[in-house]
Amino acid sequence: MDVGYIYWLDLFGTAVFAISGALAAGRKNLDLFGVIVLGLVTAVGGGTLRDATLGATPVFWVVDPVYIIVASTAALITVVLARLERIPHGLLVKADALGLATFTVIGAEKALSLGFSPVIALVTGVMTGCFGGMIRDLLCGEIPLILQKEIYATAALFGAGVYVGVGLTPAPTALAIWSGLLAALLLRLAAIRWHLQLPVFTHQ
Amino acid sequence: MDVGYIYWLDLFGTAVFAISGALAAGRKNLDLFGVIVLGLVTAVGGGTLRDATLGATPVFWVVDPVYIIVASTAALITVVLARLERIPHGLLVKADALGLATFTVIGAEKALSLGFSPVIALVTGVMTGCFGGMIRDLLCGEIPLILQKEIYATAALFGAGVYVGVGLTPAPTALAIWSGLLAALLLRLAAIRWHLQLPVFTHQ
Amino acid sequence: MDVGYIYWLDLFGTAVFAISGALAAGRKNLDLFGVIVLGLVTAVGGGTLRDATLGATPVFWVVDPVYIIVASTAALITVVLARLERIPHGLLVKADALGLATFTVIGAEKALSLGFSPVIALVTGVMTGCFGGMIRDLLCGEIPLILQKEIYATAALFGAGVYVGVGLTPAPTALAIWSGLLAALLLRLAAIRWHLQLPVFTHQ
Repeated sequence: MDVGYIYWLDLFGTAVFAISGALAAGRKNLDLFGVIVLGLVTAVGGGTLRDATLGATPVFWVVDPVYIIVASTAALITVVLARLERIPHGLLVKADALGLATFTVIGAEKALSLGFSPVIALVTGVMTGCFGGMIRDLLCGEIPLILQKEIYATAALFGAGVYVGVGLTPAPTALAIWSGLLAALLLRLAAIRWHLQLPVFTHQ
Repeated sequence: MDVGYIYWLDLFGTAVFAISGALAAGRKNLDLFGVIVLGLVTAVGGGTLRDATLGATPVFWVVDPVYIIVASTAALITVVLARLERIPHGLLVKADALGLATFTVIGAEKALSLGFSPVIALVTGVMTGCFGGMIRDLLCGEIPLILQKEIYATAALFGAGVYVGVGLTPAPTALAIWSGLLAALLLRLAAIRWHLQLPVFTHQ
Repeated sequence: MDVGYIYWLDLFGTAVFAISGALAAGRKNLDLFGVIVLGLVTAVGGGTLRDATLGATPVFWVVDPVYIIVASTAALITVVLARLERIPHGLLVKADALGLATFTVIGAEKALSLGFSPVIALVTGVMTGCFGGMIRDLLCGEIPLILQKEIYATAALFGAGVYVGVGLTPAPTALAIWSGLLAALLLRLAAIRWHLQLPVFTHQ
């Protein structure tokens, strides 16, 4: 992906996800190093699994260590800031939605650009957006929120679908990217605003 | 593996494992998307780890997205069916045994066909058969049943051992495949029928 | 890495980590096979993730199955020994510190020898030393001790840092290896001896 601003959005998403990992660590009283590990895992876990399954190795953060530096710095700053003042929850949730949307489109784009089929692009899009948060919750000893909560992974699937769908038309790539990104972002923000939920499946 | 019917057995195992993942999701009240994710992870988790460790990337479902389609469809149908009527537990457990046996032999075969040693074939056989269920249980916040329950992973190890053992003789490949598959299947069915268990290790 | 004794240290670390996995399995009453799986996962989990992310596949234990044999044998012997007599906890913790130090330096060395940057070597060093124990705890249904406990992952980071730092000077490779190994080992032993801890981050 040569679109420069997407790289910056990606780093922004990395920082935001690292912050969410660090805050989760804070709720579990982890030590400073645990905070960094949880921040890193949340920020780069999805892309790592995506690259490992696509065979795009070494994975992205090995090729470009800036991701590691951004994520660990963001986790450390979170610890300092959280002692000084309360991090506004609403702001964080909205930033997380932007991170989710960006990661999703980037994950889907990577599969397509390597020549894989649209179905795979849907899977790697959702994987990139959601997997880091799943490991974060696992390491905290909880059933991943993403599997239970307000529309989250569904927003990623929607965004990946829009990106892939527009990409199949003759429209320019930038349009596909922004359509997918906005689709995921708006659905996620709507889900937060009006507490939209998928039906729950209860068995036994 | 050119044996066509093995491909169909593999897809059958994929569907069965996806159903078991979806039902586990139902016990934890996950939302619809959580059901699909848990179904997918259970169905393709073992083969994904196998391919990633063997360096056989992109992993199998990236090369052939039919696995993704079969697994998510099976998970969705499970949700619909489970609302209409009770899924007979006994039938499911037996189908799961067939899935385990198939995945195990396919996992061992893949290592051998790539030129790796019999020891590695045992490991990838067990890994392919059992790892998906382990992630399923982890995501549900439980200690994997496979590590505690009636002979399960042991049946996979036995089947992989028979497959590798017969494969070392001049016998035709199809014989090795069917011997391994039947060995795992019969041991697992016997374990279910008579509640066979390995001794438990208790320390401290 | 051509340094022969490092290979033996690596196998020693593999055995020690397998023992720690087997003992954790014993505390959770897993069956015999669960003991072996937990031993294996603890012993080779870190190196597996390292190789998968670096693209150094097939991963190390596929290339050299001796690791699998050493780890499963160590786990089985643990079960036998634990029935005969009490395994002295203090000895095990010190052996574990040596395993941690060895794995860390080997993990960092692998990244550098493949031409990756020092930042990546720090990450793969810590990953190799600590990730196996994290999966062990996850499979046992616990929040990984490494994220909460006395300086553990921090000792790995310190050792990896010393190794990478000395390696950037014209000093011989063996000096870098031994400096890093001793740095991690001594910091970990000191942490055990005086219960050193990083500050804990508590939020909300």
